[in-house]
Amino acid sequence: MARLATRLTRRLGIAHPILSAPMALAGGGALAAAVSRAGGLGLIGCGYGDSAWIEREFAAAGETAVGCGFITWSLAKTPELLTRALAHRPAALMLSFGDPRPFAAEIEAAGVPLICQCQSLAHVRQALESGAAIVVAQGTEAGGHGASRATLPFVPEAADLVARESPDTLIVAAGGIADGRGLAAALMLGADGVLAGTRFWASREALVHERHHAAALAATGDGTVRTALPDIARGLDWPKPFDIRVSDNAFIGRWAGREAALKAAVAEEAPAYREAFLAGDPDRAAVIFGEAVGLVGDIPSAGEIVQRMVAEAAALLGGAGRLVVRSI
Amino acid sequence: MARLATRLTRRLGIAHPILSAPMALAGGGALAAAVSRAGGLGLIGCGYGDSAWIEREFAAAGETAVGCGFITWSLAKTPELLTRALAHRPAALMLSFGDPRPFAAEIEAAGVPLICQCQSLAHVRQALESGAAIVVAQGTEAGGHGASRATLPFVPEAADLVARESPDTLIVAAGGIADGRGLAAALMLGADGVLAGTRFWASREALVHERHHAAALAATGDGTVRTALPDIARGLDWPKPFDIRVSDNAFIGRWAGREAALKAAVAEEAPAYREAFLAGDPDRAAVIFGEAVGLVGDIPSAGEIVQRMVAEAAALLGGAGRLVVRSI
Repeated sequence: MARLATRLTRRLGIAHPILSAPMALAGGGALAAAVSRAGGLGLIGCGYGDSAWIEREFAAAGETAVGCGFITWSLAKTPELLTRALAHRPAALMLSFGDPRPFAAEIEAAGVPLICQCQSLAHVRQALESGAAIVVAQGTEAGGHGASRATLPFVPEAADLVARESPDTLIVAAGGIADGRGLAAALMLGADGVLAGTRFWASREALVHERHHAAALAATGDGTVRTALPDIARGLDWPKPFDIRVSDNAFIGRWAGREAALKAAVAEEAPAYREAFLAGDPDRAAVIFGEAVGLVGDIPSAGEIVQRMVAEAAALLGGAGRLVVRSI
Repeated sequence: MARLATRLTRRLGIAHPILSAPMALAGGGALAAAVSRAGGLGLIGCGYGDSAWIEREFAAAGETAVGCGFITWSLAKTPELLTRALAHRPAALMLSFGDPRPFAAEIEAAGVPLICQCQSLAHVRQALESGAAIVVAQGTEAGGHGASRATLPFVPEAADLVARESPDTLIVAAGGIADGRGLAAALMLGADGVLAGTRFWASREALVHERHHAAALAATGDGTVRTALPDIARGLDWPKPFDIRVSDNAFIGRWAGREAALKAAVAEEAPAYREAFLAGDPDRAAVIFGEAVGLVGDIPSAGEIVQRMVAEAAALLGGAGRLVVRSI
């Protein structure tokens, strides 16, 4: 099997420049370990910080080297969770959605590479001030939380900024990448690798209800929307500019444009929403996937996903020179 | 100089797989001809259909082969403009933003290749029903009018659909592409070429006020927004799901979230808006560029833009095989 060698594979000592996103709830130890065993690096989603969940999922990863990721604004409320996560000696620690600077010193002292996920150039500057080893430039097409910049123009602009101001910092592309085409494209844009969420969410190892997986297989990339509604229904106080990309389903249709009404009704709606989510109801609660769902046609193992992405990207990149015609 | 050879260059008989977007007002005959002379294909922006403007700009293109493009919902009000445009024997005719099917027969009868710009899979299906020779998959990061899908995941999903249902139809990527990195990425995603707007808007041949060019040079890709406000101020009745990406300036800040108020005040606001636009005021009217503005650092000739994009993409694609390591 071919490998793809980039600055990211050399820096992290991995075979393939592919990270799995630290998806809250869905990205546990089994998924992260499967991605790492296949030659990428899997990240456990520490999410909103349930310490028992974090301990269990690190245990589920076993002896396999995995990293983990936190929601930064939530971590700021329970910073002791960072200490607990670092005690597991993660291969990398990723911070997303908030100012990483208050946590940088502890992560550096632990000798763990810091990955900062960024949604704007302003975020990239904060990441560089934090001494991030890796900047993830995440586009709006990503499933789950994010913001408004799109991957294709954001990655090269972020790469230019990083090359000017901190050339040893690596760039990883996220948002909309689910196959070898997206991986090959990201490398052409100047990324050193990719981080994929939706594609690994749609794997056997992900902690996802089978009805949610069925909804994903039935969806096209046209059928998602970026919205605040699921966070309102869950009583989660997400700061601007972040919202969440989810399936454009009956729940969204019912409340679209009526955020204030949902807020006012949250006492009744929150339990119904939670019950529907836990039951895997694809209509009455959010199903969390991004535009790349339109490139997802099955629910294979995470290891097979890594292998397919690498094989397809290697074929494209290996043959790319044939597009170039040298004039005499 | 290297060339990039794809199905698009072979089909259109051009040297490089680069089209310039038919930008209303900004994309006249001088720009289109300059792109064609450099080896791409330039498209005159017939926009909302001012027949004197169209005649003048075809004259400005002279003997150089150029194409042109219409706003489909607007063309439906003045379909005779299509006949006039076809009389110029354009190298291709592009339809964007509306149902192309009513115009397909006349275009085919003229022997002119039909390009349909699409913002969703539903649009792609309409394009295939129209017998389009080329489908442009346009992402939300594009400047000017568009919708919500993002380029990176939309292009491969559209390419898969077209490959299944109409394999001789070509795919062109649009939205966020301003340099050789974007061009190389688009080809890895499965596109046969690219269509660039913002990058050619920021050229010497574009019909753009110098103060607008100065605003673009000062902007980053973070500083744009997709909105209905400029169309409200201009009294243009754009149908859903289309809106326009523009600079996130004082005009936007003044009216953001107050679309109804702007509608109510349009009698007073429209003349002020128009005056500000014509004066090149970068604050009190929209400046129309996309996220790729963050990749624009100068206002060169359109021919130099083509050459740079090709040289950079050829270097990236020619060297891409070096990323692949074959295992023993």
